[in-house]
Amino acid sequence: MGLFITLEGPDGSGKSTQIRRLSELLGHSGIEVHTTREPGGTPISDQIRSMLLNPENRAMTAKTEMLLYAASRAQHVAEVIRPALEQGRVILCDRYIDASLAYQATGLGIPLEEVRSINQHATDGLWPTRTYLIDVPSELGLQRAFAGRGKCLDRIEQRDLEYHRRVREQFLQIAKEEPDRIVVIDGTQSVEAVTEAIWQDIRRYL
Amino acid sequence: MGLFITLEGPDGSGKSTQIRRLSELLGHSGIEVHTTREPGGTPISDQIRSMLLNPENRAMTAKTEMLLYAASRAQHVAEVIRPALEQGRVILCDRYIDASLAYQATGLGIPLEEVRSINQHATDGLWPTRTYLIDVPSELGLQRAFAGRGKCLDRIEQRDLEYHRRVREQFLQIAKEEPDRIVVIDGTQSVEAVTEAIWQDIRRYL
Repeated sequence: MGLFITLEGPDGSGKSTQIRRLSELLGHSGIEVHTTREPGGTPISDQIRSMLLNPENRAMTAKTEMLLYAASRAQHVAEVIRPALEQGRVILCDRYIDASLAYQATGLGIPLEEVRSINQHATDGLWPTRTYLIDVPSELGLQRAFAGRGKCLDRIEQRDLEYHRRVREQFLQIAKEEPDRIVVIDGTQSVEAVTEAIWQDIRRYL
Repeated sequence: MGLFITLEGPDGSGKSTQIRRLSELLGHSGIEVHTTREPGGTPISDQIRSMLLNPENRAMTAKTEMLLYAASRAQHVAEVIRPALEQGRVILCDRYIDASLAYQATGLGIPLEEVRSINQHATDGLWPTRTYLIDVPSELGLQRAFAGRGKCLDRIEQRDLEYHRRVREQFLQIAKEEPDRIVVIDGTQSVEAVTEAIWQDIRRYL
């Protein structure tokens, strides 16, 4: 059985950059690594991703959004994550269930237990061994996301600052409840310092 | 509060024809009726419908399929069904939760209670007042579906006869468990006789 690692954090926390850097470091150490992201990661999940992020889908309700994330995740786990873990690989995944707990439960007001239970079904109870939560203040995160892409923010990023603050608070709350799985990393440090902090921890699992 | 009626039954049972005929009868009686169908019924649900029925999405797992149906239903209930019921309308809906219990639970081997619980969340517990199950032998249903559309069967219809037999058995089983809500109608009768049987029952609710 391989090793399932997820990176979580608000928009603009620098997860994708860190996944690229960690993947290189793992590769240099001769470790077979598979990087992936949510929503997405399979052709079917990518079709769901397009629906979720399309700013024109403004009528989408909170429940629909939550269930679409769960559907996309079910496909991703069955088609990519489980098979790769069974081949003994290290998986680095950009977002997973914690993101739904933060963005859909707390963010949109769906009971946390409902989101947890539906995602438990969707993934047949597959949780990561280790999760790095890259924490940045919401203002900074949105500023970075905005700078990176001009005005083309997706449907979720377009939500207001108050929403993104609730999301960040929920991420920190989940981390408090699961200290054995989730490590909080200060995302206001330099890119190099963030990679180093994660790398020092990840090495213990290899 | 309006009246929420669903029609269920295997593929080729003649549900759409009956919904058209019943809608006319209700209209002639001066009753405001809204006809709709699942999966679909809203622009977002229609995007999900296309994914579900696309024969190219052959890699889709049972869980993904079940969650996509639930997502499409959540949107349909929030955007169309509940508002119409609150306006006092009669809703005639082609397929609803019972279809997921038959096609995804029994048909694909997901535990019935899991499908029921996820759909309960998706719809905030909205069940129809009355459901007409138009029962036809699976061979006849598929033959009719096939005759109606040549070789262009969708992803679900393309499944084998054994699958469609399990679906039919499950529909009959659910009807047995909920005799106060579900009426079984013999779908091998003439189109006129089926309409008449449903009409005689529906009139009691108007």
